Amino acid sequence: MRSNYEVVIIGGGIIGSSIAYYLAKAQMDVALLDGGAIGDKTTKAAAGMLGAHSECEDDASIFFPFARSSQQAYRELKDELYEISQIDIGYREGGILKLAFDESEKQKLHYLLQQPSVQWLDGHEVKKLETAVADHIVGAAYIKDDVNVIPTQTCQAFAKGAQVFGASIFENTHVYGVQKLNDSYFVKTTKGTIEAKRVVVATGVYSNGLLQDIGVSEQLTPVKGESIVVQTNQPILQHTLFYEKSYIVPRNNGKLVIGATMIEDEWSESISLQSMEDLINTAKAMIPSSSEWKIDGFTSGLRPATFDGQPFIGRHPEDEGIFIACGHFRNGILLAPATAELIRDLMLEKEENKEWLDAFRIDRRQLTKV
Amino acid sequence: MRSNYEVVIIGGGIIGSSIAYYLAKAQMDVALLDGGAIGDKTTKAAAGMLGAHSECEDDASIFFPFARSSQQAYRELKDELYEISQIDIGYREGGILKLAFDESEKQKLHYLLQQPSVQWLDGHEVKKLETAVADHIVGAAYIKDDVNVIPTQTCQAFAKGAQVFGASIFENTHVYGVQKLNDSYFVKTTKGTIEAKRVVVATGVYSNGLLQDIGVSEQLTPVKGESIVVQTNQPILQHTLFYEKSYIVPRNNGKLVIGATMIEDEWSESISLQSMEDLINTAKAMIPSSSEWKIDGFTSGLRPATFDGQPFIGRHPEDEGIFIACGHFRNGILLAPATAELIRDLMLEKEENKEWLDAFRIDRRQLTKV
Amino acid sequence: MRSNYEVVIIGGGIIGSSIAYYLAKAQMDVALLDGGAIGDKTTKAAAGMLGAHSECEDDASIFFPFARSSQQAYRELKDELYEISQIDIGYREGGILKLAFDESEKQKLHYLLQQPSVQWLDGHEVKKLETAVADHIVGAAYIKDDVNVIPTQTCQAFAKGAQVFGASIFENTHVYGVQKLNDSYFVKTTKGTIEAKRVVVATGVYSNGLLQDIGVSEQLTPVKGESIVVQTNQPILQHTLFYEKSYIVPRNNGKLVIGATMIEDEWSESISLQSMEDLINTAKAMIPSSSEWKIDGFTSGLRPATFDGQPFIGRHPEDEGIFIACGHFRNGILLAPATAELIRDLMLEKEENKEWLDAFRIDRRQLTKV
Amino acid sequence: MRSNYEVVIIGGGIIGSSIAYYLAKAQMDVALLDGGAIGDKTTKAAAGMLGAHSECEDDASIFFPFARSSQQAYRELKDELYEISQIDIGYREGGILKLAFDESEKQKLHYLLQQPSVQWLDGHEVKKLETAVADHIVGAAYIKDDVNVIPTQTCQAFAKGAQVFGASIFENTHVYGVQKLNDSYFVKTTKGTIEAKRVVVATGVYSNGLLQDIGVSEQLTPVKGESIVVQTNQPILQHTLFYEKSYIVPRNNGKLVIGATMIEDEWSESISLQSMEDLINTAKAMIPSSSEWKIDGFTSGLRPATFDGQPFIGRHPEDEGIFIACGHFRNGILLAPATAELIRDLMLEKEENKEWLDAFRIDRRQLTKV
Repeated sequence: MRSNYEVVIIGGGIIGSSIAYYLAKAQMDVALLDGGAIGDKTTKAAAGMLGAHSECEDDASIFFPFARSSQQAYRELKDELYEISQIDIGYREGGILKLAFDESEKQKLHYLLQQPSVQWLDGHEVKKLETAVADHIVGAAYIKDDVNVIPTQTCQAFAKGAQVFGASIFENTHVYGVQKLNDSYFVKTTKGTIEAKRVVVATGVYSNGLLQDIGVSEQLTPVKGESIVVQTNQPILQHTLFYEKSYIVPRNNGKLVIGATMIEDEWSESISLQSMEDLINTAKAMIPSSSEWKIDGFTSGLRPATFDGQPFIGRHPEDEGIFIACGHFRNGILLAPATAELIRDLMLEKEENKEWLDAFRIDRRQLTKV
Repeated sequence: MRSNYEVVIIGGGIIGSSIAYYLAKAQMDVALLDGGAIGDKTTKAAAGMLGAHSECEDDASIFFPFARSSQQAYRELKDELYEISQIDIGYREGGILKLAFDESEKQKLHYLLQQPSVQWLDGHEVKKLETAVADHIVGAAYIKDDVNVIPTQTCQAFAKGAQVFGASIFENTHVYGVQKLNDSYFVKTTKGTIEAKRVVVATGVYSNGLLQDIGVSEQLTPVKGESIVVQTNQPILQHTLFYEKSYIVPRNNGKLVIGATMIEDEWSESISLQSMEDLINTAKAMIPSSSEWKIDGFTSGLRPATFDGQPFIGRHPEDEGIFIACGHFRNGILLAPATAELIRDLMLEKEENKEWLDAFRIDRRQLTKV
Repeated sequence: MRSNYEVVIIGGGIIGSSIAYYLAKAQMDVALLDGGAIGDKTTKAAAGMLGAHSECEDDASIFFPFARSSQQAYRELKDELYEISQIDIGYREGGILKLAFDESEKQKLHYLLQQPSVQWLDGHEVKKLETAVADHIVGAAYIKDDVNVIPTQTCQAFAKGAQVFGASIFENTHVYGVQKLNDSYFVKTTKGTIEAKRVVVATGVYSNGLLQDIGVSEQLTPVKGESIVVQTNQPILQHTLFYEKSYIVPRNNGKLVIGATMIEDEWSESISLQSMEDLINTAKAMIPSSSEWKIDGFTSGLRPATFDGQPFIGRHPEDEGIFIACGHFRNGILLAPATAELIRDLMLEKEENKEWLDAFRIDRRQLTKV
Repeated sequence: MRSNYEVVIIGGGIIGSSIAYYLAKAQMDVALLDGGAIGDKTTKAAAGMLGAHSECEDDASIFFPFARSSQQAYRELKDELYEISQIDIGYREGGILKLAFDESEKQKLHYLLQQPSVQWLDGHEVKKLETAVADHIVGAAYIKDDVNVIPTQTCQAFAKGAQVFGASIFENTHVYGVQKLNDSYFVKTTKGTIEAKRVVVATGVYSNGLLQDIGVSEQLTPVKGESIVVQTNQPILQHTLFYEKSYIVPRNNGKLVIGATMIEDEWSESISLQSMEDLINTAKAMIPSSSEWKIDGFTSGLRPATFDGQPFIGRHPEDEGIFIACGHFRNGILLAPATAELIRDLMLEKEENKEWLDAFRIDRRQLTKV
């Protein structure tokens, strides 16, 4: 283990791995550290929807253009990452149907239908696309661009790609703390201390200790998301179905993912009986015959929630060698490329998107108060 | 593989393995064949309740004395099997509480409370024993003698014990058919043909092909039973709870088993979403706080049901070298020792229990009709 | 369950599923039966190399042109199957390097290098392509066309594709026997009897009972193949490595498969300590640093071997409504499309390849003897 | 979550859980915290040998009497824990055979044979006890008192037992740091801050960050231990076999554990190919026919090694409200009861064993230097 790097990235989930990829590709000397294995915590439990539209709840937010930009980056990344890393990110087209079963649900889709990329389908059209949907379907917002990837493979592809571009990866390397001395940071780990010119904190919901250590008062709250993976004897869905913050995602291997619960302030990754019942009921609301689907497995992960639901992306307010990229809540996979681009541009002092950096700065709560 | 044995037992589940044990202990020369691994189908999915009382639905049946006799045999077997096989069968005392949440449910327990070994506890007493039971509990039949074992370990202990007494065990040995020539039977298997003086058919619900082959018209119907294995942060149950054919069984390793569904005529061992929802609701009816329990795994197996719910145990009606022991429905673990004793006594022409043999003969349907 | 089909295919592995796909696409009325789940036995354990060249041991055999034809069929199938079934078969280019570590091993590749599609690379060139290969590498036959697919997903894609074209799939439907009456076949299953005009036997090594039942004397012998699935911190292989009948296959998910043992006449799918040691040593012979690779899992399956190593494909010699497609040994995935085409052409009385049918007929042993 | 306890124990492995049990039984008000689940790290991977003799390498050490005392405590604990927690710790008699295959290996057992509780068996006698041992066995030290328990169940039994005695258990509660204010300690966790009069650090190899935080300069080094769990068709071993720091342990469920590697300074719990090969070779050295054993699974855990191989047990040198119990290396399960007794006696100011406390104090390295 070398003891000196230009940049040390703490956290090998989808955010840290994509940052490692973007920085290594820009020829920086990068070490990527993870307390466990690459992509093995929250990333592993994600459904992988690139839901720029479907995850957007209103039209005022900065979220949408940022998410769209990230979603579009994946179009090129899917081939680039395969070529470099030899790992397939499982990019799957088909799009999302955001379902409405009554008029009020249809109303809530109004903001979404303003987008030229979104199309309204009435109940009859939805049933033609997906015959298993419940008969009383009123219609759906059809979002062709909200496609899927396979999260673990995407994360592995970023990390292996970074490695091919020269980055060093250290798994099972837990970080105790970060100290500054002169112009260097000393990252204390289970495997010894590493010196770096810059440090990136990308440890998702597990960032709280580190944030305290580097003098940041913001904290993240876990929102557990549990999903059921199922097999079906029925013809496979061609679109992701989305209803009331839940979804059914078809996978390239023929399996379906029913997700996800939203259990606030829960640090365990276990699957509760109540959550399972809730997911089963959600699936039945969308597809009545799902009661016959067979259980293949479960996933569970802790989404990192910030006070306002938007991520923290940018420089430490008082320490310009420390960068923060965490708090992506339900949207880590979707936002990873755009987040990595922002961090890279900041670090290389390229022309970065100031509007986004303002929106996502970690001290925005204090600034707002004033 | 020797090609000649005194007795070939087809089927290495709990029934075939216990018969192998009893015969080998009686110094017979036994081969035990299984198409897969010992105890790896229906046996594996059993909860292991020795529910002589709790599984008995009325007092007229021959089932009760037969089941009681088998239950009592386990008291000695638990130490004997450990000594011989070095495998612990997980015998666990504590007994069963058969719950009643209203007066009509209490009425249904009336027949059970006639037994001197069964005691009525009112709601207050039940709550004292198990505080997590739903508050509106009316009372329970407390059956101290209905204890539990761990089914796979019990089956392994029988099979290994038989091996120690000289039996040969052949796993992954599928049987195609049985032919008689002179006084011998020729058992055709994937690994070649084995000659035997006597054959025992103990293949549970998978017996249909063989029964046809040996000229028996009775067939077995699968009734799938699915269970959820859970972990809990709460204090562990000290008793098995039983309610409406479902149960929650505490295990020696601190886990609980919630079982079991009754899906008729289903040949798949997969776990359906509907079944999971049903089991979760059953558990909540007994213990409301079970909604917080964590899923640890599932089990599933196909119970072999006969036309009248009683097993087939005895000689082939027209072929005295063939013995049949199948169709034990929900009670294979419970009834294994008594079944093995009956088969052994028949084979050795010891004084056998004629009443039981009459009740369980495979041609009883035809006899009844006449 | 309908009780009457034009064609009943027994066996839902890669061979039966591909036949179902080709027949259903040709608008035949097909039922596909499997005793367990689609693709869940030998298919699941395959590595998925489309090794038309690498599996060919000499140049006289009919194997090579047949295998090449099948390999080429996959080029179109990969997109066609995705479009129809929504399942990705994981087609992965890169090709195979068949390694030689000394001159005698190089000599053995001579026959292969006659093929215009195969190129000799010397040790230096091999190390440039795959730096982790052992330093004393002499060279390799580079076979660009021997690509990979993911076997289970390919099998699922065939089966689901058949379903989309109208086929019925019955899992957990064990077949006891087949009887002919007038012009119909009656297939006796755990779920009742199905009538069919034609029957296809595609049950791999589990065909022996059925073959006996339909009067065929040939039998299949299992040759167990065990593999280790591993993860690596090293850069991922870009090519499949092949050495002494063993191989290391890179997967689209970044994992590697080290396979496979050849355990003759073994009916168990368990993984033995000896096999594991052998696989580890094979991997180290190719890639010394593989000793650091991490175990992710195992696969195991029983290859169906015939007396001469070639499959049985064609009509029953004396019963023209019965078709046989089994005994594909190490090459079921590779040969599935060409096998399915042959069966379809025979059944539709299209112009079929007579040379291949002669080579693969099930009574060839008797014919040869005469 | 209450925010105030008399004692907070950090670490829910076998050491922390046994301390919780002893303190709660002594009517102290205890909270037991674990960053993950109870017993789910190093404890889970232990073989569970209570090897007071077999783990002792020479006769000068304080280790032996301490270990003997702990071993004897288990004799009563096995019933007590079952009664209180309803969990069976899997106490299994049979003893250990420490094998010698040549004269020099026999010499090394000399110190052990001084103990009255240890008996020499010559090769002939060893073969009579365990027929599968390699024929060239010279003899074995037979240690009847070195029995086994099942580590996870033992740990769960301690924790659940503590809960029954009133302790609170908080899983998934990671500790960032400990601060002292007046006479109280403030334990900062992912779930908020808990105040305590006393704190126990029992986080095994994961203690380093905490030890730094509380001003202790000693650090622990991980020594990874990997094991293979196997099934066998052979008669089951009746004794644990021990040879060259490796062992084969028979389990109550009929499985065997082959362990364990000693990989120094390794923080990953993954299983490497090299380690597997080494374990397989060790098993074959003891039992040649083990090459046929079937792989059932793996375990892996990080043993906490101190500078001199002895644990740290006692009070913080400069802070009398902090207690330390970590660094038990290969012997956490064995030493847990005696460790818990020492901590309890210290805390309650009972008459404690001063000799042991001197031997295990955390500042012994500095004291020795002087």
